[in-house]
Amino acid sequence: MADQKANIGVVGMAVMGKNLALNIESRGYTVGIYNRTSAKTEEVMKDHSDKKLVPSYSVEDFVKSLETPRRILIMVKAGKATDAVIDELLPLLDKGDVLIDGGNTNFHDTIARNARLDKSGINFIGMGVSGGELGALHGPSLMPGGQKSAYDLVAPILEKISAKAEDGKPCVAYIGPNGAGHYVKMVHNGIEYGDEQLIDESYDILRRVAGIDVDELSNIFKEWNKGELNSYLIDITGDILSRKDDLGSGKPIVDLILDEGANKGTGKWSSEDALALGVPQSVITESVYARFISMLKDERVAASKVLPKPGLSVDFDAKELVEKVREALYFGKVMSYAQGFEQLRFASEEYDWDLKFGELAQIWREGCIIRAQFLQNITDAFEKDPKLTNLLLDPYFTDIAKKYQDSAREVVAIATKAGIPVPTLSAAVSYYDSYRTEVLPANLLQAQRDYFGAHTYKRVDREGTFHYPWYKEQ
Amino acid sequence: MADQKANIGVVGMAVMGKNLALNIESRGYTVGIYNRTSAKTEEVMKDHSDKKLVPSYSVEDFVKSLETPRRILIMVKAGKATDAVIDELLPLLDKGDVLIDGGNTNFHDTIARNARLDKSGINFIGMGVSGGELGALHGPSLMPGGQKSAYDLVAPILEKISAKAEDGKPCVAYIGPNGAGHYVKMVHNGIEYGDEQLIDESYDILRRVAGIDVDELSNIFKEWNKGELNSYLIDITGDILSRKDDLGSGKPIVDLILDEGANKGTGKWSSEDALALGVPQSVITESVYARFISMLKDERVAASKVLPKPGLSVDFDAKELVEKVREALYFGKVMSYAQGFEQLRFASEEYDWDLKFGELAQIWREGCIIRAQFLQNITDAFEKDPKLTNLLLDPYFTDIAKKYQDSAREVVAIATKAGIPVPTLSAAVSYYDSYRTEVLPANLLQAQRDYFGAHTYKRVDREGTFHYPWYKEQ
Repeated sequence: MADQKANIGVVGMAVMGKNLALNIESRGYTVGIYNRTSAKTEEVMKDHSDKKLVPSYSVEDFVKSLETPRRILIMVKAGKATDAVIDELLPLLDKGDVLIDGGNTNFHDTIARNARLDKSGINFIGMGVSGGELGALHGPSLMPGGQKSAYDLVAPILEKISAKAEDGKPCVAYIGPNGAGHYVKMVHNGIEYGDEQLIDESYDILRRVAGIDVDELSNIFKEWNKGELNSYLIDITGDILSRKDDLGSGKPIVDLILDEGANKGTGKWSSEDALALGVPQSVITESVYARFISMLKDERVAASKVLPKPGLSVDFDAKELVEKVREALYFGKVMSYAQGFEQLRFASEEYDWDLKFGELAQIWREGCIIRAQFLQNITDAFEKDPKLTNLLLDPYFTDIAKKYQDSAREVVAIATKAGIPVPTLSAAVSYYDSYRTEVLPANLLQAQRDYFGAHTYKRVDREGTFHYPWYKEQ
Repeated sequence: MADQKANIGVVGMAVMGKNLALNIESRGYTVGIYNRTSAKTEEVMKDHSDKKLVPSYSVEDFVKSLETPRRILIMVKAGKATDAVIDELLPLLDKGDVLIDGGNTNFHDTIARNARLDKSGINFIGMGVSGGELGALHGPSLMPGGQKSAYDLVAPILEKISAKAEDGKPCVAYIGPNGAGHYVKMVHNGIEYGDEQLIDESYDILRRVAGIDVDELSNIFKEWNKGELNSYLIDITGDILSRKDDLGSGKPIVDLILDEGANKGTGKWSSEDALALGVPQSVITESVYARFISMLKDERVAASKVLPKPGLSVDFDAKELVEKVREALYFGKVMSYAQGFEQLRFASEEYDWDLKFGELAQIWREGCIIRAQFLQNITDAFEKDPKLTNLLLDPYFTDIAKKYQDSAREVVAIATKAGIPVPTLSAAVSYYDSYRTEVLPANLLQAQRDYFGAHTYKRVDREGTFHYPWYKEQ
């Protein structure tokens, strides 16, 4: 054991845990590290013998190696492994110690763990970590939720290791009690799914309708990245489309990648909770379904031989279409974020979290996958009006809708006629049209429900609940 | 107590329980009835003193009033009330008795209850009941799942009380083990949500784009009901649109009903499980979200004053549009059922139920809300090929897609340009286009995921898992 106690401990030396430990160490802290199998820890020590890392090869030694109150970051596979680590640590901890789960954990689990540990006087923070391996090493976006007093004990470290936005602010903030941090990370990932699918549909339209080749598409995305669409995902898309096969065929790498879109669950969770909360979150959900249908590759190949393509002609100017797709993409993105923040608003109320919406957009400005210039506009909108019910009602976003809605409509119409699937772009337009419509055909729906199930309805002209005598002869 | 033991007992004398009891009695059975509060039971006995009903005013008397093995139909509010009834009954039952839960119960609960009761030797059937109050009285569609031997004990009664299709077949069949019956009812309800929303969008387009008045719309739906769209929901829509305000304003009743589409959860559950199973079930989910957004009435009214409408012109012939909308509606319906049956296929495998897909369509032909002529085509498709992966690959449905896809596309394009929300119609077209597309842009998605998260990808030209050296300078 080292003489000097470590300032913080990290459990789990897979790539994310290792990189976060190195990131923390690089900010002047001594970091205790521990892994279930010793080999991993030894490997880290071999590769980083010059670092202020304190390795332990038993949980007991690990806990002893930390200064009190102990701060322990758990970076293991979400689920049973997390519980196993907690159960091993628990008997060795003292009241006031802080456990931080930095895994991709379902927020329901975090709420339950926070409550269980709180009974033993142990603080539990569920922390969303975004930015992948490199983010973990150089500066991730961090979304910690749990006891506020526990957050204060780790805030100095988290602020140092997090990404910094252009204005120098750290991409971390106290999100809220118990599961709030993991919830916000979940919605972040849902939004990320939406962003990706919107980009992929845009690419598909330009490639298959306008016939633009991959090199030119790369240039288009690089160009887009210089404007209001500026973001990490647009940036890497431009780069991806310029890359050739690393195995030497000379073809664009994208054409050699199998079109089965995998998922690790968090986007899906976000849709599941939108359904539970009653929030219309169609863009993200359609992006989840787009991944699901892409996974049915064998079925699709079989279907492609049987199901006919459309017989309609489409009329467009290729150059104009590029700009219209850009505008449609931005329009779709705005709708997706409007839905995502509406979900956060519903969740904040339902779970009693008092989320600070503007701050969330702020800490996503750097470090995470959805980092983008336009997040500043979201922060600004909530700073102007912290009680804003929907982003679309903020003047900046109203203006985007106004300017770009017609392009979005035309692009959806063209793609739909040309046979290119646009599940998220069309969901975005339908969301906009539903949201801005005073009278939806749900009046007919309520009549139908009252007709077959006597479910009753309200009226527009008087208070109360009504049932129509449908079965009485007129 | 009556001298003659009752053949079956019904717990819960709210309208559904009472009507099912009367239905069973009308087929020549003696029915024991019980309700937590005696007043309800007394009321039923007062109104139906001539019927072979055996009332009980304690659970003990109720159980004693039944012949063995006992058959008890529980018709109480799903959830805690169901558990309360089961817990009261359990100590009084004998091995081999059969409990039937006819409530709108979540299939997860049914699976758990079936397993719990099975340990005590009590059979537990979770039974979906569709058809509303009148269906319960005159002939519902029934979806019972549980022990097959228990089903055999109640099959003669269920067959007698169920609706009968045109060919005389009863609208009931053994669905499968434990939660299968409630699952199928849940998907039935999801499909019902989709059918309703597709109809409501069609109505909205014809009314707000083509400017057709409500009386004429009533005639259009009545006309549609004579053709391939023939179904209960089209039928009642035609009727609803002909009805005037029952409170005397002279206006169409639909215009006085508040456009807040309520829901009781089963459609939402069906989307939740589609997400859990990885099935692309976009049409039903969009119909759930359409209800959610309709509930945000105050927000919509505020937004309608701020968010601008489109500035595009649309070009169409009103008469042609009516026929195109009819074709689009049928196309959308086919996509929705294709997704619903794909979900049932995934569920059958996941939960090990061995569902008979053709039989499900068969028992939906009468009694239930989605009853329709076209269900026979689904039965035929699965009879021809019980292993059919997707309805769209059956020649009848391929042909519908072929004939009507262009109308569906044109209607989506017109509505989208005109500013009418078409979340389910556009989801239907995108689903069709995704399903029939050999190469989707999920290849770009996989490149993105590999770029930021080292998630790896498969290639189209060789086996294995690959990671591209994105961060190496080219």
